[in-house]
Amino acid sequence: MRWSQFYLFTTREVPSDAEVVSHRLMVRSGMIKKVASGVYSMLPLGWRSVRKLEAIVRRELEEAGAIELSMPTIQPAELWLESGRWQAYGKELLRVEDRHGREFCYAPTAEEVITDMVRHDVRSYKQLPFNLFQIQTKFRDEIRPRFGLMRGREFLMKDAYSFHAEGASLDATYEAMRAAYERIFAACGLEFAVVEADTGNIGGSDSHEFMVLARTGESEIVSADDGYAANTEKAVIGALAAPAPGAPQAMETVATPDCASIPDVATFLGVEPQQLLKTLVYTSETEELVAVAIRGDRDVNEIKLQNLLDVQHLSLADADVVARETGAPIGFIGPVGLRGARLLVDHSAKDLAHFVCGANEADAHLVGVNWGRDVELGETVDVLLADEGDPSPRSGAPMRKTRGIETGHIFKLGTKYSEALGCRFLDRNGKEQPMIMGCYGLGIGRTIAAAIEQNHDDDGIVWPTPLAPFELLLVALNPQDDEVVRIANDLYARFKSAGVDVLFDDRRERPGVKFKDADLIGVPVRLVVGKKGLGDGKLELSLRADREKHLIDVDAALERTMTALRA
Amino acid sequence: MRWSQFYLFTTREVPSDAEVVSHRLMVRSGMIKKVASGVYSMLPLGWRSVRKLEAIVRRELEEAGAIELSMPTIQPAELWLESGRWQAYGKELLRVEDRHGREFCYAPTAEEVITDMVRHDVRSYKQLPFNLFQIQTKFRDEIRPRFGLMRGREFLMKDAYSFHAEGASLDATYEAMRAAYERIFAACGLEFAVVEADTGNIGGSDSHEFMVLARTGESEIVSADDGYAANTEKAVIGALAAPAPGAPQAMETVATPDCASIPDVATFLGVEPQQLLKTLVYTSETEELVAVAIRGDRDVNEIKLQNLLDVQHLSLADADVVARETGAPIGFIGPVGLRGARLLVDHSAKDLAHFVCGANEADAHLVGVNWGRDVELGETVDVLLADEGDPSPRSGAPMRKTRGIETGHIFKLGTKYSEALGCRFLDRNGKEQPMIMGCYGLGIGRTIAAAIEQNHDDDGIVWPTPLAPFELLLVALNPQDDEVVRIANDLYARFKSAGVDVLFDDRRERPGVKFKDADLIGVPVRLVVGKKGLGDGKLELSLRADREKHLIDVDAALERTMTALRA
Repeated sequence: MRWSQFYLFTTREVPSDAEVVSHRLMVRSGMIKKVASGVYSMLPLGWRSVRKLEAIVRRELEEAGAIELSMPTIQPAELWLESGRWQAYGKELLRVEDRHGREFCYAPTAEEVITDMVRHDVRSYKQLPFNLFQIQTKFRDEIRPRFGLMRGREFLMKDAYSFHAEGASLDATYEAMRAAYERIFAACGLEFAVVEADTGNIGGSDSHEFMVLARTGESEIVSADDGYAANTEKAVIGALAAPAPGAPQAMETVATPDCASIPDVATFLGVEPQQLLKTLVYTSETEELVAVAIRGDRDVNEIKLQNLLDVQHLSLADADVVARETGAPIGFIGPVGLRGARLLVDHSAKDLAHFVCGANEADAHLVGVNWGRDVELGETVDVLLADEGDPSPRSGAPMRKTRGIETGHIFKLGTKYSEALGCRFLDRNGKEQPMIMGCYGLGIGRTIAAAIEQNHDDDGIVWPTPLAPFELLLVALNPQDDEVVRIANDLYARFKSAGVDVLFDDRRERPGVKFKDADLIGVPVRLVVGKKGLGDGKLELSLRADREKHLIDVDAALERTMTALRA
Repeated sequence: MRWSQFYLFTTREVPSDAEVVSHRLMVRSGMIKKVASGVYSMLPLGWRSVRKLEAIVRRELEEAGAIELSMPTIQPAELWLESGRWQAYGKELLRVEDRHGREFCYAPTAEEVITDMVRHDVRSYKQLPFNLFQIQTKFRDEIRPRFGLMRGREFLMKDAYSFHAEGASLDATYEAMRAAYERIFAACGLEFAVVEADTGNIGGSDSHEFMVLARTGESEIVSADDGYAANTEKAVIGALAAPAPGAPQAMETVATPDCASIPDVATFLGVEPQQLLKTLVYTSETEELVAVAIRGDRDVNEIKLQNLLDVQHLSLADADVVARETGAPIGFIGPVGLRGARLLVDHSAKDLAHFVCGANEADAHLVGVNWGRDVELGETVDVLLADEGDPSPRSGAPMRKTRGIETGHIFKLGTKYSEALGCRFLDRNGKEQPMIMGCYGLGIGRTIAAAIEQNHDDDGIVWPTPLAPFELLLVALNPQDDEVVRIANDLYARFKSAGVDVLFDDRRERPGVKFKDADLIGVPVRLVVGKKGLGDGKLELSLRADREKHLIDVDAALERTMTALRA
């Protein structure tokens, strides 16, 4: 493609709402253009990256046995009422009335439409399983769209849905999709992690997120060298090393006036926070009080706790409720003699010995407390919030905290939609059963943006080759010079014949403009034909990644460039 | 693809709203599924045809220099207010309010968004011309959606927009696009015609429609062997042979009591209708009366007349208006002594001699009238409605009437949108000018449906190979027979290795079901592995187009089939 005939206009203007680097760089490099808040055109440069990603996604999903179809964006309210999502979805669902006053929505996902299709087409276990996908525009009416393609309202998404007669079949497809996703992100040349994720309000039993790693990512994840990785919200933590026990002593009540926080108590008593037992009291819609005892230096992961208790609305209990039910003020709660609340002990606290905890009376703590001797350990749980260095549950290897951008999310949905919509089949015994479903999302535009978050420097994008809009940038540095033009044109023709995806900067612009633009759009390999170099029979070959310049002979240009492209 | 692992369920159920054959066959063959009125899912079988068409469209448009991008479906009202289409479009424009109460529409086309983009990006004639296209979902809220994909509400369309500094540049791109469209429809294996079309309310100066020919088409077109073709509405007609003149005589008034129609007058006077001059009086928003004189046996093409007069609302004038302005009653109007109306003479009437016409008084006609001798010929025009056998304007060859389905439409838009949105550039002289635009539409789903309208029989679809969802159907007729399965599996593997797009009917169904389904889905080449044939070492090869069965040796199956595929 000749730049002079392409539609590609870079700009220095950074939109005022561009808070993240991928948004700024996509606008500046002419990849996207804002049409309305959270609504973008993919300009020709950006669309080329999208098309490359789509091809990778199609190839790997078909390899995994998924079959492509296309569902409409505008979907009737009736189906969404059947699933219950018409009511549940809230304002993020863009609702539309047609000319006859009938209600529709612009689909953010397509569980309803595909389940409706399958319930009409499929009757028997013999027709199962199958796995269907589409790459289609979606809309989610975010209250505050931002970050360009990262949290847009209209966006391109690959969504897949699988249908099964048995859980084992879902497990097999889920694994095939997980492997396909790993191949996809690897084929894109991206660093990524597969993390166990909370299933949130989509429901279902098992879920993984695919995170493109980037310092700027919105999700915090922990991972270890043993391959374990999880969203911090969901991370399981191996056994913590027990802290050095306090000096052996009999349990004893000590006055701790006004010491209602862990640091205050630790300082007052001259012990380490990790030798304290912190006890927090939670409540929920069930109104049961739950006291969670955890090591004094650690925090409760409230999402883990919420899932453990199987409740919807978890919060710390108010002081007056705690006082009324347990007879003790907040800040001085402890397991010994606790009443009015169910006690859960996090595994971080179960190996404490001779520890300090609240005495269940104002301005007093117990010291020298031991599980078993002074109080029953009772119910131990894992509600620990992961931290840097915590042991992996797989091997105990220390975990790192890192950040990522969620670009894929796969779920074992179970029968949520098939039950709601009556999508049933006859099993081997002629008995009617709801189908078991999986669903598998992958953000197309989001992956492109995440690739930029991961791969850029101060001057622009540093594309991984598989997602680069072009593989090679051929620059005619002095387009008014006949020899430069002749050599560049000749090379352009030869690269095209060789099937290279080449952008030829044949514009009548100054060298400075061309170099700045080249850095900005970030094509991986650059070959420069300049008047000065040609005087010595040389061209300049460089990679965007390191920008080291290699002078090469004109005659060797094709071969050397092809080698660089294949590297 | 193994049918047993594909999502393809044919049905005998014909939807009650399926009035046209393509709609019935697409539903029955499992290509599409209705989600709401005028809103369909493209099932895997249908989607394969769409993807093949998309690939042809992309290839030929890129060959013509067009560049792909992707614009959003949800577009802000502001841009549509600027162009005036927010008000003008009426209820076919699906209007949407977001959660903040801002107004948007689901785009039926994208002139506004692309013109807005270009006015921000482009400043100079040096950046022009360019031609941008997308393949994107559109929505048109038809009052009565019908015919399946032929007149749906949500539909897939290729739309392109070109921008130019000069008319000559638009002409060149328009011609390149016209040629690309011809290559596209030819590459699809479709019979089609390129017709001059009325530009309608999109405006602009020049327009062609691409019609896939089919008896069931909604548009009437005329065409001749010399390559001329036009929408009947727009067709230009060559010089008609003059009818035999009446007997020479002086002009004379004759009484024609109650003879106010051409047949009545012709019968009463004993002459042929083609020797009469019919004079019709039209009015419009300008309130000028226009009398159109045309040969008695022919009809006025009111669209041609409307364009000629450059008016919006043309209709036959009321009798009282005609009587008041011309002093003559309708049915007895004629050119001789006509007053109160502008006279236009259609070219069908200019060679009449010794003809009959109204006398401009009740119950009276003139006979023996001659142009020049008795009345000035005045202004001659072409407002003739084309008929079977009329001469082509190119060579005089007789034209045929036929029917077609509009699948593509290209326009020279001119400056309508660039003026409305202020999309200007600086010309060579530094003067600001509005850009000149072209636009080019091609219905993706509509072309697939039109292909079926053109290519089917009583038993199902007869695909032209380029749009067929699969090229080859391999049928294992007796899937319980080990030898059949072995041979069929072996052939399937070999066809796959050879890159053949093969559907392998490995289902455990009766032969009757398999043959019926094969005819219905219409894969062009069919190879049947049956127990009976295998007894003689034979397979059965046939083409869907003629269904003639050829017994071929098992050993020659691959080669013979490949030959049939390439034919």
